[in-house]
Amino acid sequence: MLILATNDDGVYSPGLKILANALKHLGDVWTVAPDREQSAVAHSLTLHRPLLVEEVMDKVYAVNGTPTDCVNVAVHGILPGKPDLVVSGINKGSNLGDDVTYSGTVSAALEAAIMGIPSFAVSMVAREDFLFQTAADYAATLAARVIRDGLKKDTLLNVNVPNLMPEEIKGVRITRQGRRVYTGSVLARVDPRGKKYYWIGGETENWVKDPVADHEAVKMGFISVTPLMLDLTDYGYLDKIKGWEQLSIILNPFP
Amino acid sequence: MLILATNDDGVYSPGLKILANALKHLGDVWTVAPDREQSAVAHSLTLHRPLLVEEVMDKVYAVNGTPTDCVNVAVHGILPGKPDLVVSGINKGSNLGDDVTYSGTVSAALEAAIMGIPSFAVSMVAREDFLFQTAADYAATLAARVIRDGLKKDTLLNVNVPNLMPEEIKGVRITRQGRRVYTGSVLARVDPRGKKYYWIGGETENWVKDPVADHEAVKMGFISVTPLMLDLTDYGYLDKIKGWEQLSIILNPFP
Repeated sequence: MLILATNDDGVYSPGLKILANALKHLGDVWTVAPDREQSAVAHSLTLHRPLLVEEVMDKVYAVNGTPTDCVNVAVHGILPGKPDLVVSGINKGSNLGDDVTYSGTVSAALEAAIMGIPSFAVSMVAREDFLFQTAADYAATLAARVIRDGLKKDTLLNVNVPNLMPEEIKGVRITRQGRRVYTGSVLARVDPRGKKYYWIGGETENWVKDPVADHEAVKMGFISVTPLMLDLTDYGYLDKIKGWEQLSIILNPFP
Repeated sequence: MLILATNDDGVYSPGLKILANALKHLGDVWTVAPDREQSAVAHSLTLHRPLLVEEVMDKVYAVNGTPTDCVNVAVHGILPGKPDLVVSGINKGSNLGDDVTYSGTVSAALEAAIMGIPSFAVSMVAREDFLFQTAADYAATLAARVIRDGLKKDTLLNVNVPNLMPEEIKGVRITRQGRRVYTGSVLARVDPRGKKYYWIGGETENWVKDPVADHEAVKMGFISVTPLMLDLTDYGYLDKIKGWEQLSIILNPFP
């Protein structure tokens, strides 16, 4: 079993090291991760410049790029073959609900899924004092299951773990992606030279009530496991707007 | 009607200017876009530094950030109110199939959808000699329809336009997101100082055959309109792996 571990907090993040250690029981683990923190870089891909790679320890590599870059360079350049599994994490902070689309951690798993490699992302639901070992133990358990049973093609798993000791975890819930009550904000200030600047604010923790959503599971002390698809098509709506094909256009845009 | 136009090619891209002009018939159009090219930045959000904004013309603003940043700063800082519609484009190059998750153009529309604002992304399927006016005319037509009928909550539209003159366009197809045959590659070379570097290669145009997919519609000369969801949950698979909740974990990861 060839396993790739990656993350978006950077190659020196303790969560990544603990994850790689936990996966060693299952196979040959290689770590390829960004050389610095890359949070909220989403599924960014670096195409306009080359990527430099440094071997910082045996089978541990730092790349000056995004998590998605790391998966590409690992699979096509560093690893001895195509990995059987890619695990991304353990992230310092949750990746719940709509936040998955901003997440570098989840995007690394997404990239693996695009390549046809079973993958999942693991995040700790906390802001500090991370109990990474709890998540690492579950990651190893889930990895063993995925290796045994496989994962559906074009689907990845997004795992969020409450920041609890293993014996305090209530169990596991297979969940759906939750939805925030949108409360985004931007701070407007004036710099020392009198120019206005903006700083994007953090979201407050305000969720649409939903008993089967990821955020409610972790709030109750469960690990949430959400299967996410590569196919974003809204099939129900596709059928509804089929009539828009008749919107005959272009030569007369304002009838 | 308050309309926001944005893109990922940068505020000076001709596609954006043509788009904003085409939308002016429908309402008060403001343009807020990155100060430079931001392709493949996906849904990246800038949280670690402030964003500087420059008014480059009346109601046209350049932001030193990503397309997702631009939507945030526009809605919460620059515009006189919450826009009724966000249109992102016209992108120089297609955003078909799996590529939507890398796309800054599509992510700007995604951000608007998260905010509850009807939105769509428009891209030209070409590498050069872009016939932006064709896409702009259709964008105006579609915008008029969206303003009249609304769009489903939590869903955005991804529009790809063949690089043809308006009279050569075959029509419109409501499509689903296609799937590439994965052929990703990474170039490995040695720099002038003898260090190895990697450069992520472009994908070749190789698609899974699918008559209702976006890429086949544009190949046949149709404009493709694909509804995309914020909710990535794979509900079918969720039910299948429900039993994994019993994978009682953690205290005994290797039974």
